[in-house]
Amino acid sequence: METPAALVDMERVEANLRRVHAYADQYGLKWRPHTKTHKVPELTALQLQAGASGVTVATPHEAEVMASVADDIFLAYPPVGTARLARLMRLPPRVRLSVGLDSREALQGLNAAAREAGRKVGVLVELDLGMRRVGVQTPQEALVLARAIQASEALEYRGITFYPGHVRALLGDQDAALKALSTELGEVVGELTRADLRPEVVSGGSTPTLWRSHEVVGLTEIRPGINIFNDRNTASVGACGWDEWAYSVLATVVSTAVPGQAVIDAGSKALAKEEGFAPGGGYGVLLEWPEVVVRGLSEEHGLLDLTETEWRPRVGDRVRVVPNHVCASVNLHERLWAVRGGEVERAWPVAARGWGTPERQA
Amino acid sequence: METPAALVDMERVEANLRRVHAYADQYGLKWRPHTKTHKVPELTALQLQAGASGVTVATPHEAEVMASVADDIFLAYPPVGTARLARLMRLPPRVRLSVGLDSREALQGLNAAAREAGRKVGVLVELDLGMRRVGVQTPQEALVLARAIQASEALEYRGITFYPGHVRALLGDQDAALKALSTELGEVVGELTRADLRPEVVSGGSTPTLWRSHEVVGLTEIRPGINIFNDRNTASVGACGWDEWAYSVLATVVSTAVPGQAVIDAGSKALAKEEGFAPGGGYGVLLEWPEVVVRGLSEEHGLLDLTETEWRPRVGDRVRVVPNHVCASVNLHERLWAVRGGEVERAWPVAARGWGTPERQA
Repeated sequence: METPAALVDMERVEANLRRVHAYADQYGLKWRPHTKTHKVPELTALQLQAGASGVTVATPHEAEVMASVADDIFLAYPPVGTARLARLMRLPPRVRLSVGLDSREALQGLNAAAREAGRKVGVLVELDLGMRRVGVQTPQEALVLARAIQASEALEYRGITFYPGHVRALLGDQDAALKALSTELGEVVGELTRADLRPEVVSGGSTPTLWRSHEVVGLTEIRPGINIFNDRNTASVGACGWDEWAYSVLATVVSTAVPGQAVIDAGSKALAKEEGFAPGGGYGVLLEWPEVVVRGLSEEHGLLDLTETEWRPRVGDRVRVVPNHVCASVNLHERLWAVRGGEVERAWPVAARGWGTPERQA
Repeated sequence: METPAALVDMERVEANLRRVHAYADQYGLKWRPHTKTHKVPELTALQLQAGASGVTVATPHEAEVMASVADDIFLAYPPVGTARLARLMRLPPRVRLSVGLDSREALQGLNAAAREAGRKVGVLVELDLGMRRVGVQTPQEALVLARAIQASEALEYRGITFYPGHVRALLGDQDAALKALSTELGEVVGELTRADLRPEVVSGGSTPTLWRSHEVVGLTEIRPGINIFNDRNTASVGACGWDEWAYSVLATVVSTAVPGQAVIDAGSKALAKEEGFAPGGGYGVLLEWPEVVVRGLSEEHGLLDLTETEWRPRVGDRVRVVPNHVCASVNLHERLWAVRGGEVERAWPVAARGWGTPERQA
C-alpha cells in the first residue's frame, strides 16, 4: 500500500459506536453524530444502525452526501449566502432538515429560500455558551430570535443549540466550566419557557465532554463527531483510551540523516497541522510507540522525535500516526482504508470532503 | 460564486514571474520553480514560458501531472519505497528526471528501480545546511554518498541540493545565517572538488531568501515555489509587497454575533492552519483590510479580529483572505479561479493536489 494512507480499524469503530449509544441510551439523550469527522456515507449508515437518531453536518456538500443514507439532517452552521441556501433546498424532500443560526439576516434568507422551495425547515437558535465563535450572547437575544423564527412562514422553531468546544482544553478542570454552562443554559431555557417558547430540542455536546453530557442540565441531544475514530486530543483530555484510537495514518520513514529524529512521508498534507492539548506538544504520536511525538511538520515531511524512545527506525520502515485532530486529517485524504483483523477490507472514498461541486461555475 | 473559493490574480502572477526571471537572469542562476505551490500544469507552462529551466516537485503525483508540460523534473524528496519508485519510473521516457537523496538505502532502491526500468536518473546529494529536516550532516558524508552515486550503474551524479527554510523565520537577521550557509556550502563543494566530484549543479533557494540568492557563494540554481502567488509569510519576511499577493480565498461573513469579531466561512479547511512569522500572529489577513487578522480557525470558521479596524462587516458580506502559507491552502481546494481585471477568466483543477491514484489498490 502506498503511503501516506488513512487507515480505519473497524473493530474499534464498532466498539466506539456501541459505547456512545449505550451512554446516550442510559441517560435518555438523543445521539446525532457529527459526520464531518469521517465524511463517509457508509460510516453514517453504521452510526444510524448503531442507534443514532439523525446526523449533523457542517456544509451543504456533507448534507448532500449524507442524504443518501440519512433522513434527518441538522446543519450546525449558519445558512448564509444564496448558493449555500440553494443547495440545501435541493436536498431530497424526504429529508427532515434543520439548521442552527444566530442572526436575523440568516433567518430572513433561509425563510425566503424555504418559502420559494415549498419546504418547511426546522430552526434552532444558536447560543454562545463560552466558545466565543458563533451564537447569540444573551437569553434576551435568544428570545428575540426564537420569536422571529416562530413568526416566519416557512420555518419551524425547534429549540436551541450550542457547541461547548471551549471546555475541551481545560483538561482536569472541566467541573466549573460545565456548571457555568448548565447555569447559562438554564437561564436561556427559563427565558424562552416564560415566553411560551420552551425548546423541544436542547442540542449540544462534543467528543471531549461526551461522557459528562448528562451533567448538563436540560440537554436532550448530543452531537459528538470525533468519537467514532478518536484522536490524540481526545486521549489528552481523558475522553478515550489509547485502545480506542480507530484512525491512523500509515507512513514510511524516508530519512534518518539528522540525529535524534526520523522523517516520515506523512506531513501537514496528511496529518493536518493542528496544535493539540497534549502536554508534550507536537502534532501526533505513533500508534505503536506513543512516546514518539511528531515534533514538526512540513507539507510532505513529518519529523519524529526519537529522544524519548529506544526505537531506532531505518529508512523504509513503516509506522502509523495518530494525529492531534482527526477531522482535519480525514479531509486531506481521498479515501479511507477499512482494516479488520490486520487485513484491508475495503476503501471508502471520502465523499463529503471539501465542498463538492459548486452550484454555478464561471 | 460559492464560497470559500481560491482566487488567482493573473496580472500579479505574470508580474511575479517576470520579476523572478529577471533576477535569475541578472545573476546567471537557473530558475527551477517548485510547482507544489500551485499544483496546476497550466501555471507550470506559464513558468516555463517565462524562462524557467525545469521544474521541481515533491511527489510522484506532482511529477506525473507536471510531465504533461515539462521535460525536466527534479524530485526534491527522498525517493523511498517501492510504490514511489515505480511511479517515478513510469514517467514518460522523454522526461529528464533527477532526485535529491541523503541515504544509502534511498540510493540503492533508486538504482535498482532505474536499472530495471532502463532509465538513467540524475541524483543530487541532499545537504542539511541548518534546516534540520533532511540532508547529510558533513562534507565527508556528502562525499561518501557522491562516490556511491557515481559507482551506481543507473544513476548519474549531478551535484548537491539543499533547502534553506530555516533562514526564513529570522526576519531582519538573515545576514549571519546566509554567511554561515555560504561557508558550509563552500566546505562541501571543496571536499567534493578535491575528490574530483565537483558539483555541476548547486541547487537551493526558497522564496523567503529568494532575492538574496546571489549572496550564496557557488549557487547555480534556485527553486522558489511560493513566489508565483506570495503569501502573508512572504510579506512578513520582506520578500514581497502587499501588491504582489496573487492568491486569496474568497469568503462570506456568516456571523457577527460575538462582539469584536466576525466569522467567515473560510476556516482551516480553506486557509490551512499554519502559524506564521507575522508579529501580529493569526492565520491570515484580509486583502482589502490587511489590519484585519484571522485570529482563530475551526474547520469551517475563520474568526476575523475587528479590534484594529474601522471596518464593520455585516452577515453576507464578502472578503478575500491572504493565508499565511499559500501552498497548504492551495492543496485544500479542488480548483483555482483565475481572475483578470476583476473578471473570472477560467477555473483550473488543482490537478496535483493530494497524492493521486495509488499504484495498487487493495
